[in-house]
Amino acid sequence: MEENMNSLTEFLREAKAAARVAAILSDKERSALIVEMAAALEESLPAILEANAIDLEAADRAAMVSAMRDRLLLNEDRVRDMATALREIAALRDPIGSVIDGWRTAEGLKIEKISVPIGVICAIYESRPNVTADVAALCLKSGNAAILKGGKEAAHSSSAIAAALQSVLTRHNLPSGIVALLPDGSRETVKWLVRQDRYIDLIVPRGGEGLIRFVSENATVPVVKHDKGVCHLYIHESAEYDMSEPIAINAKVQRPSACNAIETLLIDRKVAAQFLPKLKAAFDLHHTELRGCELTREIINIGAADEADWSTEYLDNILSIKVVASIDEAIAHIFQYGSLHSEAIVANDANAIESFLDRVDAACVYANASTRFTDGGQFGFGAEVGISTNKLHARGPMGIRELTTYKYQIRGNGQIRG
Amino acid sequence: MEENMNSLTEFLREAKAAARVAAILSDKERSALIVEMAAALEESLPAILEANAIDLEAADRAAMVSAMRDRLLLNEDRVRDMATALREIAALRDPIGSVIDGWRTAEGLKIEKISVPIGVICAIYESRPNVTADVAALCLKSGNAAILKGGKEAAHSSSAIAAALQSVLTRHNLPSGIVALLPDGSRETVKWLVRQDRYIDLIVPRGGEGLIRFVSENATVPVVKHDKGVCHLYIHESAEYDMSEPIAINAKVQRPSACNAIETLLIDRKVAAQFLPKLKAAFDLHHTELRGCELTREIINIGAADEADWSTEYLDNILSIKVVASIDEAIAHIFQYGSLHSEAIVANDANAIESFLDRVDAACVYANASTRFTDGGQFGFGAEVGISTNKLHARGPMGIRELTTYKYQIRGNGQIRG
Repeated sequence: MEENMNSLTEFLREAKAAARVAAILSDKERSALIVEMAAALEESLPAILEANAIDLEAADRAAMVSAMRDRLLLNEDRVRDMATALREIAALRDPIGSVIDGWRTAEGLKIEKISVPIGVICAIYESRPNVTADVAALCLKSGNAAILKGGKEAAHSSSAIAAALQSVLTRHNLPSGIVALLPDGSRETVKWLVRQDRYIDLIVPRGGEGLIRFVSENATVPVVKHDKGVCHLYIHESAEYDMSEPIAINAKVQRPSACNAIETLLIDRKVAAQFLPKLKAAFDLHHTELRGCELTREIINIGAADEADWSTEYLDNILSIKVVASIDEAIAHIFQYGSLHSEAIVANDANAIESFLDRVDAACVYANASTRFTDGGQFGFGAEVGISTNKLHARGPMGIRELTTYKYQIRGNGQIRG
Repeated sequence: MEENMNSLTEFLREAKAAARVAAILSDKERSALIVEMAAALEESLPAILEANAIDLEAADRAAMVSAMRDRLLLNEDRVRDMATALREIAALRDPIGSVIDGWRTAEGLKIEKISVPIGVICAIYESRPNVTADVAALCLKSGNAAILKGGKEAAHSSSAIAAALQSVLTRHNLPSGIVALLPDGSRETVKWLVRQDRYIDLIVPRGGEGLIRFVSENATVPVVKHDKGVCHLYIHESAEYDMSEPIAINAKVQRPSACNAIETLLIDRKVAAQFLPKLKAAFDLHHTELRGCELTREIINIGAADEADWSTEYLDNILSIKVVASIDEAIAHIFQYGSLHSEAIVANDANAIESFLDRVDAACVYANASTRFTDGGQFGFGAEVGISTNKLHARGPMGIRELTTYKYQIRGNGQIRG
């Protein structure tokens, strides 16, 4: 164990030194590297598929469930998609060196607040091997070094992908620590890793609640969580039915396993009797399981929602429904059960809309649109590291801009403090 | 202990509910409350001085060192200064509701990124009782609830100050949890407190290294540290002596106990022989103890700096001096020993200045000015919570804007995701 830690400390020291190199590359250099990495992935296609086959075999031996196996599977198309994603990241606008703010003080100091790389970013994630390429490229584009800790089940695939990316760095005499794959992934190692605040500047865990809780509880390094989404759609009494139905259906059924899908529909009692039967008919066409509060079940014949339903992220085609007496009750319900992710109102009344947008505390608050738009791509950020449920540093879709921090550059001509 | 935790949980629940109320007050309401709090402090002058006398008596019994006793001491002038500081905070521009960014997506969604309160902010600090009033007002001005955990040595003073502030909230039928003084301050309680991420959104520790380390190691709540400053001034070969001397003297001696004072002077070898004797003479007038590297000691007759000196925050009128061969060596030294706080170059060469500003990673990087300007007041932020040495969320001077986060408000007209 101790010998292991010594070699891991050396690994982290290299990552920190690599971050210093990455930080002073120009955008032109960073982008060119990422474009070359895309080509390297395509050239390494046979090696990557071979490695993936080993992971798939192990998955089959372990009788992995088919959805997970599908996430793990790579083929020529998927590798080409990874390369395309890298080329898109390379083409994004440089997030480094933006003047976020600037002013001059009474003493004549010129102060500028400038976006800069964070340093060493450690991503801890599960299954999908493409995350290895995406996160490495997003970190490099923003001038950071990436430490990648993928799932054990994708170890060979991730390793082959990282080798392709690192070959580009080596070719340019750059430290391979700019894209560093964690060699050992035991729980004990992760526990130790997340306390190395001397070397790591940010940890981004992506995965199940267990992983995220484990990282948060043990970390001294700052963590940006990608936690669960318990999202709501509130249909206000002023809502038009013709807008409410497509938004409700889209927010629930388009991809129930996504964190930005809704789990609960809140509906104003003044329109409940009119809307609920039609909504039930619409959801029935999509085979959505509905679970209602007592008032809901007086109107439509569905199963009962119990207390646990209100705080459950189903990750499935299930929707709980609650009739509320007012917008205040809707907001209070969201305050109590929501996970601060994405919340939406359908309404025609401008006061209700503004009140909802102002008073609901969540990363993304929508009026008259589906919560499914909470996504880096949809927001126009390009690829995303994930969707942060942190309140601080990064909130909501996390793209390359959220992989930067800032510093103040202050220019004077001899000023001293009086 | 368990009963204690139950009552503390109730205390936190009240703080969280109070934060919800604070968040929807208008700036006019928040500012008026703070102005009333200033008056309440003045009206409570006798009670505050009486409470302070009890703390001072205990300090004298414990033979507290005079510098600490002076920090603890309140008198009529100091209470009036606290009130004045509150009125200045009330007059600051509202940090809530700013549109930080905004755009329209291809689908016609209008996305706005809006500044919002963080929620419940817990400040953990030592001695100075005025921090109680300052932090409470800064949090309220930015729409947050404050949990205040002051030092034991100032318990009676803080309690009297908090009572004055809370009297204003009660008068307006607002929850006193908007300014909540932690009733119990044992280490065990703090350890428990910093893990209550369900109720607390941010912890700001201000104090000695021991306190900050203890909080960071145990917290699951995000922490913005106000850690030590190991700051440097680098005199480049292109620097004019007439600008170098006043900046060096100011950065070291104006207030050696401040975190933005320098600890090490780096000087280019091309000007060392010319500048160092004059600098020594200037520092001698201020009775500064100088400790030098070998090359320095070949030029001026001073004590030796050892390895530990380079990473020490003296908090005293002591300066270490190192001769460097180049700007690269200066930057490498800062990378190795600096605490990412404030770093400065004196130079006349534009390339050297830009290179230093770009490559040095610190909250504040100066060209041709003293590091002593790293301060909320000097930056024009008004009062400050402190100076953050975090890389994330808040970096450098932390004013009311750094007590906010953001959310996205998205307005559509029926958009669903395709």
